[in-house]
Amino acid sequence: MIKVSVMYPNAPGARFDHDYYREKHMPLVKSRMGDALRHYTIDKGLAGVAPGEPAPYVGMCHLICDSVEAFQAGFGPHAQEIMADIPNYTDQAPVVQISEIVRG
Amino acid sequence: MIKVSVMYPNAPGARFDHDYYREKHMPLVKSRMGDALRHYTIDKGLAGVAPGEPAPYVGMCHLICDSVEAFQAGFGPHAQEIMADIPNYTDQAPVVQISEIVRG
Repeated sequence: MIKVSVMYPNAPGARFDHDYYREKHMPLVKSRMGDALRHYTIDKGLAGVAPGEPAPYVGMCHLICDSVEAFQAGFGPHAQEIMADIPNYTDQAPVVQISEIVRG
Repeated sequence: MIKVSVMYPNAPGARFDHDYYREKHMPLVKSRMGDALRHYTIDKGLAGVAPGEPAPYVGMCHLICDSVEAFQAGFGPHAQEIMADIPNYTDQAPVVQISEIVRG
């Protein structure tokens, strides 16, 4: 199993509509990817580790798929539509990582 | 529920012993935090999003706790011991984030 982590930097003044992300964008991703997306989680940044330090990322999602190939097959055909929705909730370009799930 | 994400940058030449992390370090964290740590996951960085691009983080863990206070109460008394173990598996200083779990 693999995880695709999409992490939106918490730049000063960053715009991020958590309601839209939860209610519109992520359901769009799920509807387009179908069974290729086994599960997904959403995080809302609260804080960094030092007192008063902001969270490095204002929001994140983690997409769980069977394999990199399954992710690509599920996401690729809809990438343009999904990415075109990003400006509707944020002005931040996400940091993206593909990981092997060592412990899920 | 909250998530504490601990993310180790994938700097060029970064050292990270995934076996030690999985078999020694994370079990140490769990043994010290006890029930304050509800669950944890481990990721091993595979790739970035563009072809040939490295993963931004070489390894990550995500600690699931009932609240920020529960995390602090469980981790705080053992922070020194746990952090002293870091050089045994990496030369990287982690990026740490506390998030609200919007969707788990």
